[in-house]
Amino acid sequence: MKALRYVEVGKAPVVVDIPIPTPGPGQVLVKVTAAGVCHSDDYVMGLPEKDYLEQQYPLPLTLGHEGVGVVHELGEGAATALKVGDAVAVYGPWGCGYCHNCSQGRENYCTNAVELGIRPPGLGSQGSMAEYMLVDDPRHLVPLGDLDPVQNVALTDAGLTPYHAIKQSLPKLGAGTYAVVIGTGGLGHVGIQILKAVSGATVIALDVNEEKLALAKEVGADITIISDSDAAAKIMDATHGLGANAVFDFVGAKPTIPLALSVAAIEADVTIVGIGGGTAEFGFGSINYDAAVRIPYWGYRNELIEVLDLARAGKVGVEIQRYSLDESPKAYADLKEGTIRGRAVIVPESTERSGR
Amino acid sequence: MKALRYVEVGKAPVVVDIPIPTPGPGQVLVKVTAAGVCHSDDYVMGLPEKDYLEQQYPLPLTLGHEGVGVVHELGEGAATALKVGDAVAVYGPWGCGYCHNCSQGRENYCTNAVELGIRPPGLGSQGSMAEYMLVDDPRHLVPLGDLDPVQNVALTDAGLTPYHAIKQSLPKLGAGTYAVVIGTGGLGHVGIQILKAVSGATVIALDVNEEKLALAKEVGADITIISDSDAAAKIMDATHGLGANAVFDFVGAKPTIPLALSVAAIEADVTIVGIGGGTAEFGFGSINYDAAVRIPYWGYRNELIEVLDLARAGKVGVEIQRYSLDESPKAYADLKEGTIRGRAVIVPESTERSGR
Amino acid sequence: MKALRYVEVGKAPVVVDIPIPTPGPGQVLVKVTAAGVCHSDDYVMGLPEKDYLEQQYPLPLTLGHEGVGVVHELGEGAATALKVGDAVAVYGPWGCGYCHNCSQGRENYCTNAVELGIRPPGLGSQGSMAEYMLVDDPRHLVPLGDLDPVQNVALTDAGLTPYHAIKQSLPKLGAGTYAVVIGTGGLGHVGIQILKAVSGATVIALDVNEEKLALAKEVGADITIISDSDAAAKIMDATHGLGANAVFDFVGAKPTIPLALSVAAIEADVTIVGIGGGTAEFGFGSINYDAAVRIPYWGYRNELIEVLDLARAGKVGVEIQRYSLDESPKAYADLKEGTIRGRAVIVPESTERSGR
Amino acid sequence: MKALRYVEVGKAPVVVDIPIPTPGPGQVLVKVTAAGVCHSDDYVMGLPEKDYLEQQYPLPLTLGHEGVGVVHELGEGAATALKVGDAVAVYGPWGCGYCHNCSQGRENYCTNAVELGIRPPGLGSQGSMAEYMLVDDPRHLVPLGDLDPVQNVALTDAGLTPYHAIKQSLPKLGAGTYAVVIGTGGLGHVGIQILKAVSGATVIALDVNEEKLALAKEVGADITIISDSDAAAKIMDATHGLGANAVFDFVGAKPTIPLALSVAAIEADVTIVGIGGGTAEFGFGSINYDAAVRIPYWGYRNELIEVLDLARAGKVGVEIQRYSLDESPKAYADLKEGTIRGRAVIVPESTERSGR
Repeated sequence: MKALRYVEVGKAPVVVDIPIPTPGPGQVLVKVTAAGVCHSDDYVMGLPEKDYLEQQYPLPLTLGHEGVGVVHELGEGAATALKVGDAVAVYGPWGCGYCHNCSQGRENYCTNAVELGIRPPGLGSQGSMAEYMLVDDPRHLVPLGDLDPVQNVALTDAGLTPYHAIKQSLPKLGAGTYAVVIGTGGLGHVGIQILKAVSGATVIALDVNEEKLALAKEVGADITIISDSDAAAKIMDATHGLGANAVFDFVGAKPTIPLALSVAAIEADVTIVGIGGGTAEFGFGSINYDAAVRIPYWGYRNELIEVLDLARAGKVGVEIQRYSLDESPKAYADLKEGTIRGRAVIVPESTERSGR
Repeated sequence: MKALRYVEVGKAPVVVDIPIPTPGPGQVLVKVTAAGVCHSDDYVMGLPEKDYLEQQYPLPLTLGHEGVGVVHELGEGAATALKVGDAVAVYGPWGCGYCHNCSQGRENYCTNAVELGIRPPGLGSQGSMAEYMLVDDPRHLVPLGDLDPVQNVALTDAGLTPYHAIKQSLPKLGAGTYAVVIGTGGLGHVGIQILKAVSGATVIALDVNEEKLALAKEVGADITIISDSDAAAKIMDATHGLGANAVFDFVGAKPTIPLALSVAAIEADVTIVGIGGGTAEFGFGSINYDAAVRIPYWGYRNELIEVLDLARAGKVGVEIQRYSLDESPKAYADLKEGTIRGRAVIVPESTERSGR
Repeated sequence: MKALRYVEVGKAPVVVDIPIPTPGPGQVLVKVTAAGVCHSDDYVMGLPEKDYLEQQYPLPLTLGHEGVGVVHELGEGAATALKVGDAVAVYGPWGCGYCHNCSQGRENYCTNAVELGIRPPGLGSQGSMAEYMLVDDPRHLVPLGDLDPVQNVALTDAGLTPYHAIKQSLPKLGAGTYAVVIGTGGLGHVGIQILKAVSGATVIALDVNEEKLALAKEVGADITIISDSDAAAKIMDATHGLGANAVFDFVGAKPTIPLALSVAAIEADVTIVGIGGGTAEFGFGSINYDAAVRIPYWGYRNELIEVLDLARAGKVGVEIQRYSLDESPKAYADLKEGTIRGRAVIVPESTERSGR
Repeated sequence: MKALRYVEVGKAPVVVDIPIPTPGPGQVLVKVTAAGVCHSDDYVMGLPEKDYLEQQYPLPLTLGHEGVGVVHELGEGAATALKVGDAVAVYGPWGCGYCHNCSQGRENYCTNAVELGIRPPGLGSQGSMAEYMLVDDPRHLVPLGDLDPVQNVALTDAGLTPYHAIKQSLPKLGAGTYAVVIGTGGLGHVGIQILKAVSGATVIALDVNEEKLALAKEVGADITIISDSDAAAKIMDATHGLGANAVFDFVGAKPTIPLALSVAAIEADVTIVGIGGGTAEFGFGSINYDAAVRIPYWGYRNELIEVLDLARAGKVGVEIQRYSLDESPKAYADLKEGTIRGRAVIVPESTERSGR
């Protein structure tokens, strides 16, 4: 089968031909119908050789931590609830399935994964950018149902990540509240839709130019603000001087984190989702009373089921750009150049390339 | 001033002329701009003389527990945060302001009210169906702002009551969930709008005929079902056999309560809001595991602020029918005949009578 | 190996010799160190033949849904986080591991189990009352650590069930609150300890005689009350006329359920845990406002980990009576006669029989 | 009457004789039975004249934001639920009573207070260190009941502040969890007791020497650790490498805040209560995933009722040192010298001075 693999540290990934894997006991072989391209892959491929090897990434590494497909073969003893032919989405943040966090499906926060060497597909285990993919346990799959695979594959990360961040702030986002979304790109434009779908908040979206804000408006933002030095004042104005009840920073850069803290209301939530390398000085006077700041990672198993439910209800969609597996190296090149609108999706059986 | 008063037990209320009250220390005199008509008034006026007097209702009693107006005069020492001329809505379920529940603004659940003889306006204290109304404490008022008084007065009960019921079920009404609304009249049609505005639930509305369901659709119900013997089966179908995550019974009659219990999913909420005299046998096998059944009363102070915020955001509106104070006895007659669509509203200064 | 099996409908279970099972792919063979005796087993063995077969219980059926042991052999592909020799407790309410509830470890509320024929050990699958036991998936085991197996096996049901019930009421059981425990036997005496360990509530325990209340006092009840016709009045007195913030009815009989409803405070929780065949009329006037009534079943995976943590911290213990496997039929006879204090525990390798 | 007043900026406070105030409409005159001494008073008296005046503190200012007493006289129209002779505690963080936060009794987070010039007694309004004290509204009093005034007055701040911080973390402090208390002085030693009373957490207490840790042990800490450079490692050890589920920093200094962040588990709460001038760099890598950091201020009205309930149940007590009103200037001198164990309490009618 064809697979997009990172073969040599520092070199671009290449499409190679490798054998279709065989599912062992308890494993599931999935025929991939779509795989999403993400900045995290780029981050891994950008690691110096020393770090890459020290962090025990394998070589070669099939990329892809966003994946959907069809159950092709069940290993012995795998899953009574799954059948060959079921359309499934891969829950990416694999854990041990056994610790206190995993016992609640919070495998993104597995406390045994590091010690046991358990790693997400595409980010340590072999990933989804291939014609077939091995999933270690049926619990790492959730039903995709009749959702379009290509349109929705990015929800496994670009949907699940903002959904998780937003869900824990829902108690603060009832009637008469305000939510700020900083960064309206891959994750942010999905976050806006989620907020509109499940909360009572008025959504204020920030980005660096009007073009990006146009997408924010399109997907439901109530108020859009250019993210410049006047942004904080405009948010305070829009919130009657009280600040926002939740702020989601999908950028996480040097200027955005302090901005996020400065516009949080008393008892608000501030969630830094983007890994843009920023920090803020946290202490008395730097933030409103009882505003809680946190940095989440990906999401829970049940939350992936829920975000796909939102898609099924037509409430969340992802702006995508399609590439065949043969074209997949180009997707990463385009990603680096910043020419992709929304998320790039690799479609193994497809050769065409198109817009939304 | 003119006031609609219940003067003699068993007789229809009449419009009388009485002196404008004077606010004592800590009290507020409100010039009424609108007052809502409610079935509860009818219930009180339907009490036999013995019960009426035993329950210590006063005679004469100015009706009206839904009221909005403008601050006309502040008694000595009343409220630094209120000014003469402020538009306000009356929070009706008056409590002592001092017990553990009142200390959180949960005055509808005051544990001293009975002992201290504190009673809601129009339901024991003198109410809002007059040109002026005395409010005992500024904390029983919330800002109305620029909301239209006539269109929104009913939110103080017909909005607050479903809002309170729904708000406590919000943790169960995220993505991929279902809410059932039984009875789409005065409270139900507002409940549907609230659910759409603040939850992620798909809303299933039930009523006895297509005409009533038309209003449900109009205000946002996703699925409408005639409330007959097939209703339960249809709800189970619509919810993929799992039942609804929350059921709000705005009727509370003999057939609706068992229906509500029977369509509740595992860990759902069932809230009986309507006082229709129904009951259900509760025990093992009568309801799904961990489905919680409760009967609320009115709502909290902060919830009234929130439901008015929803109206301000254009997310909740009430279907109303307008009466002048002179016409007010007719409003109760129409209510009894069931010819009112939505809520009847008394407008002291207005003589015209019209639709929405 | 020896096993206690229900072989013929209507007859007492017998100790038989059967082959040690072999773990298939993904399965775990556990060497049983202790198995708990429960009224539910009796209920199943009391079913008429027609019902027993219609409900598809197998014959013969190895009893035992409470079990702890040591991992003896791992089937191919089973669990990277488990090792041979690990002490484990069996999580009994097996589900599919795949549905929305199971994705959160809420397998007691699996929505696929019925359709897929998945059943708890001892209650449909082969159980723990044998020298070895087959567990279908590593996720149905949690770490027992160095806890004494015999002393703690009953926590897998008699601990987990009250823990689940209590945990969901914790937000209502802070400082200055009251919890009522009706029935201080197997589950109740554990419930009292859990309440003292994790809540701020004053615990009021009810039972039918002073002897049973003595155990309640011993395990931490603050107030004990004989469960007679004065009980409700005494509870209201003890709670300053407000009622209890949570009521746990571990009996669930005709008189206890109405009692439970009648002593619930405004916004309390009433949880009917015992399956004593009782019911109550639920409707306006039968219960305080917004008191929530529910009937739970067993508990979540993470909750089993948590209740074992409580035992490890010395905060929860079970009164037990020990039987060897050979004596195990007598344990059920004693259970029927009501002569067991606390829980009866079958110890496969032990022949002695003793007190706590 | 005698009152301890700050009369001249930069000078020590003095005992002066002033007229007993008269309660206006809606106000309450309280005969003070005890008033607590706090570092915040010192902070205010340490402000340079320019800042003091700019922040609009009055001169003279009667000190004391912790106060308990007996209702001496009710102004016209004040409180139906309060009677002359009632023992009461003053809820200090006065707000407008009208905004969304105040409507829930969260007056510490009033959004109108600054604009309206509403300030806590002793910190802007005239305080409790006098024979009589004027309280602007009955809602700023809660029942003290039969609690000893001198022993418990400090709970109005030194109890309420940690209680508020802890209460919002209770959902994270169930069975098998760990709470870290940094600083076991005035607030910290009360915090330890609250944690033991209302949570299931194992409490780990940190302070700079064994003497202070002795008090921590005495009031219930399960584990005590000297707060030096090994402290973080010891906490990680004690928590099996996972970190604590909640960390309460009652110091808030340069070294303690980073320590607090470094020992927080995934999804923990970190609450910085002490105003010790410290800060921490917050960003990716500086803290475990989804650990929430916040800085609270004082507490809610209902929480004061609850913390007094804990005292009534014998679960919380404060180490105190008693001063008469005449000796009160010395209390502040002793506070500065650090010779007070626990909290200093001014007792208007008492002349003796003693230990606990």
